[in-house]
Amino acid sequence: MLTRRKFITSIAATGGLGVAFLSMRALGLASSVIAQPTPIFPPEIGKGIHVVILGAGIAGLVMAYRLERAGFSVTVLEARKRTGGRNWTLRRGDKVELNGEAEQVVQFSEGMYFNAGPARIPSHHQGLLGYCKLLGVPLEVEVNFSNSDLLESPHAFAGKPIQERQAINDFRGQIAELLSKATNQGALDHELSADDKDRLVAFLRTYGDLTKDGLYKGSDRSGYKAPPGAFDQLGIKRDPLSLRDLLKDEALAGMMFDDNIVMQATMLEPVGGMDQIPHAFHKSIKSSIRLGAEVKRIGQTSNRAEVIYLDQRDGTTNRLSADYVVCTIPLPVLAVIDNDFSAPVKQAIADAAYDHSAKIAFESQRFWEAEQIYGGLSFGTPATGVVWYPSSGFQSARGIILGAYVSGKAATAFEALPISQQIEMARNAVDQLHPGHGIDLSRPVAVDWNKVPYSLGPWMHWQDSPTDAAAYRLLNQPEGRIYFTGAHLSQLPSWQEGAVVAAHRTIELIAARVGVANSSAKP
Amino acid sequence: MLTRRKFITSIAATGGLGVAFLSMRALGLASSVIAQPTPIFPPEIGKGIHVVILGAGIAGLVMAYRLERAGFSVTVLEARKRTGGRNWTLRRGDKVELNGEAEQVVQFSEGMYFNAGPARIPSHHQGLLGYCKLLGVPLEVEVNFSNSDLLESPHAFAGKPIQERQAINDFRGQIAELLSKATNQGALDHELSADDKDRLVAFLRTYGDLTKDGLYKGSDRSGYKAPPGAFDQLGIKRDPLSLRDLLKDEALAGMMFDDNIVMQATMLEPVGGMDQIPHAFHKSIKSSIRLGAEVKRIGQTSNRAEVIYLDQRDGTTNRLSADYVVCTIPLPVLAVIDNDFSAPVKQAIADAAYDHSAKIAFESQRFWEAEQIYGGLSFGTPATGVVWYPSSGFQSARGIILGAYVSGKAATAFEALPISQQIEMARNAVDQLHPGHGIDLSRPVAVDWNKVPYSLGPWMHWQDSPTDAAAYRLLNQPEGRIYFTGAHLSQLPSWQEGAVVAAHRTIELIAARVGVANSSAKP
Repeated sequence: MLTRRKFITSIAATGGLGVAFLSMRALGLASSVIAQPTPIFPPEIGKGIHVVILGAGIAGLVMAYRLERAGFSVTVLEARKRTGGRNWTLRRGDKVELNGEAEQVVQFSEGMYFNAGPARIPSHHQGLLGYCKLLGVPLEVEVNFSNSDLLESPHAFAGKPIQERQAINDFRGQIAELLSKATNQGALDHELSADDKDRLVAFLRTYGDLTKDGLYKGSDRSGYKAPPGAFDQLGIKRDPLSLRDLLKDEALAGMMFDDNIVMQATMLEPVGGMDQIPHAFHKSIKSSIRLGAEVKRIGQTSNRAEVIYLDQRDGTTNRLSADYVVCTIPLPVLAVIDNDFSAPVKQAIADAAYDHSAKIAFESQRFWEAEQIYGGLSFGTPATGVVWYPSSGFQSARGIILGAYVSGKAATAFEALPISQQIEMARNAVDQLHPGHGIDLSRPVAVDWNKVPYSLGPWMHWQDSPTDAAAYRLLNQPEGRIYFTGAHLSQLPSWQEGAVVAAHRTIELIAARVGVANSSAKP
Repeated sequence: MLTRRKFITSIAATGGLGVAFLSMRALGLASSVIAQPTPIFPPEIGKGIHVVILGAGIAGLVMAYRLERAGFSVTVLEARKRTGGRNWTLRRGDKVELNGEAEQVVQFSEGMYFNAGPARIPSHHQGLLGYCKLLGVPLEVEVNFSNSDLLESPHAFAGKPIQERQAINDFRGQIAELLSKATNQGALDHELSADDKDRLVAFLRTYGDLTKDGLYKGSDRSGYKAPPGAFDQLGIKRDPLSLRDLLKDEALAGMMFDDNIVMQATMLEPVGGMDQIPHAFHKSIKSSIRLGAEVKRIGQTSNRAEVIYLDQRDGTTNRLSADYVVCTIPLPVLAVIDNDFSAPVKQAIADAAYDHSAKIAFESQRFWEAEQIYGGLSFGTPATGVVWYPSSGFQSARGIILGAYVSGKAATAFEALPISQQIEMARNAVDQLHPGHGIDLSRPVAVDWNKVPYSLGPWMHWQDSPTDAAAYRLLNQPEGRIYFTGAHLSQLPSWQEGAVVAAHRTIELIAARVGVANSSAKP
């Protein structure tokens, strides 16, 4: 594995990146609270240099925004009739075209929307958040976890949904009791000093809400049978779930979903839909963004790069010549575009295996709020993944709920089914968690990402250590005058932040190539 | 202790409450997801009956709203020049009068506000949430916990703040390792079957993010030294905190703050300030709400109740006669109002010991967002309690931050200091957590609740089991034609929900008295 240090040394040796860039990253090493550095260049460095950017997703938009401000002449070609790429928000009247499926027209009520692609931003994705701030995109909380959300397993809890608060706190209570017993019995005398043992046992009582004797007898942290009320309406805590029942099923892992560093509170979302981000970029970019421009060929000579594209608006085929081409096109789409890339690059692109993912959204009255659910995800059958509740518009008449959000192997099977069956599975998943409410779900929209034209997949994961993947390493280098970039060439392939950091790096590479050895960071 | 069952039996025997009321509560026993029942009566039951309500806080407003809809003639007397009671939102130009202190005039920028009283609503406080829905008060998420929020202790972590995510995940990893070892060593063979042991050890690996060997070597759940970025910028996880260091200080308990059932996500807040709730009540109540009406005497004969009050607007003293009086006045305030209550009731009121609580708010640029903090609370020195960040307006120029929110003994000491010193302590608490940023805090406002006229304290807690407290039991009964109610007479004395459920019970009692044996629930 190429270590961080080796990489810095090797790149520094080639002179490929400016010194300031390296020191900024070094700063990053010192503290995780420092935002990702944003490349800022003097406005004249790109003068007379034309860059064509393929794709107006987040990576392409960041590139265009930064390059034009550094004096480059920029043209963006985008095959879709909108910017954003996988950042895609659906509203009433929008058309969903999926390869091999009948066209869907979104029937949601006015004002309702569904983030078909990315739908949450971690608080530590400061690159993307930095652009939201810069471009004035208002943010609100995305509720990624709520204690009232549900876990359900056919193998445990008598097949009935339990609340997240039960799984989390009953499991914690049970293991606190066990660890307390083991510690008191001397089982950890080799591990802990007498003083540490005392402190641990004392703290476990608080941690697990144990009795004075160190036993777990349930906790109101897990919720009430009867809530506390007036006068003598005492809150009556639920009976605890047994450790045996809790451990019966892998569904328990659902309670740890938001412990993942990219899922931890606070999560954010743009007010009014994720596509407020590409809209804000689009508005602030002065360069030409040609929509409906489908790339047909990418080529180059020793001193020019060239792109041939079909203008879908008038059916003409056009040729663009540029100093450099930046290609953000998803690899499964790029794989079938004519090009003169080297054989290893062609092979790397052809071999890229994208993941599978699908989302089914419904409009509904907000029955879940009567169950004290305000946002977050419930974990039902693995065949349909999670049920996802809206994080805004609380207590209003209606909302958009995801009945299914499934990835990986389950999504491969799911996407193979007819759309109508996918929708019924999603409805059933909701009905299973919220008995009797499947019927409330209306106006379904299905998005199978592997059938979305110009995407053909949601994201890709390289092998465990992506820096070891030869194809990843190869595509992270320029192919002559052509630069590949995008989330798929970053350490965050399934996040918009990946697109931002990859684009920033590509800008640095181009700046270095045109002779700018320095850049400065702006937090 | 009076058990729930005994109470229901005893009240049912007296015929004091309708059967429907009891069955609704029984429903509540069956499922905690059922909302608190809301008393609904036919619109004619109160015809010709006059009720005077003392206090226009949440309890008084709920009473007025419900009683007028049941045909009662209602008059509300409120000493302050606003409704809401402790539900109090401060904005530019508002005056803060504290007994014994110079008047403060709020200097915040236009649009900024500070919830000086209640500032969050748990998702299971369905009584209050029900009124928000009924009255059209828009809600948003109140971020009660964020993984980037800070814990700080002079006794641990070299005195430096750590992020919540470090405390939570490093502690969990360490105890998962210990429990895994103890289990493998057979220390729990009396507790667990062989099968359970296997499942537990397997799950602990996931739970604690342990190595294959069951060791905790740190986790990216605890955050990064360097975040994952482009190409080979691998995320580098932080070094784990040691169990010894984690257990050094009680500050660790701060990581469990949001495990408290009343603090668990999702928490909510009204958009634009907590006082949107009393404003919405005020607008929807047709009865007279007399502001600036300071109660001077409460008395009764066998067939009438009587209130004498000072109208602060014109200085006149007025007399109101009514069939019933509902008194929501906080007990320390009530204690010095002339009355003809029985000696035991006088004593119960005089003995009520309210808690202490103070909040210090500042306006500031949002420096905490550069540290990836979006809402939630940081735990610093106990002398000033928590630092609380705003849950909305993310990435805007400025926000309101609480530098101190302290209760209990610490608040007693805190409130004894000059206001200027309280403000400097709060500033220092912020500066300690966010070095160099104390200077960013401007336009301070201090609210010592025990000095707030007509409140004289934030809330009171009866003894552990309030139904055993003789005074609590006594005041929960009518004193002739006078009914006491409010959060202090519920199982939720420090929550607005307590005011709602207490008011609902009082309405039921009055309805039963005027001869209505039945009511129906509305979810």
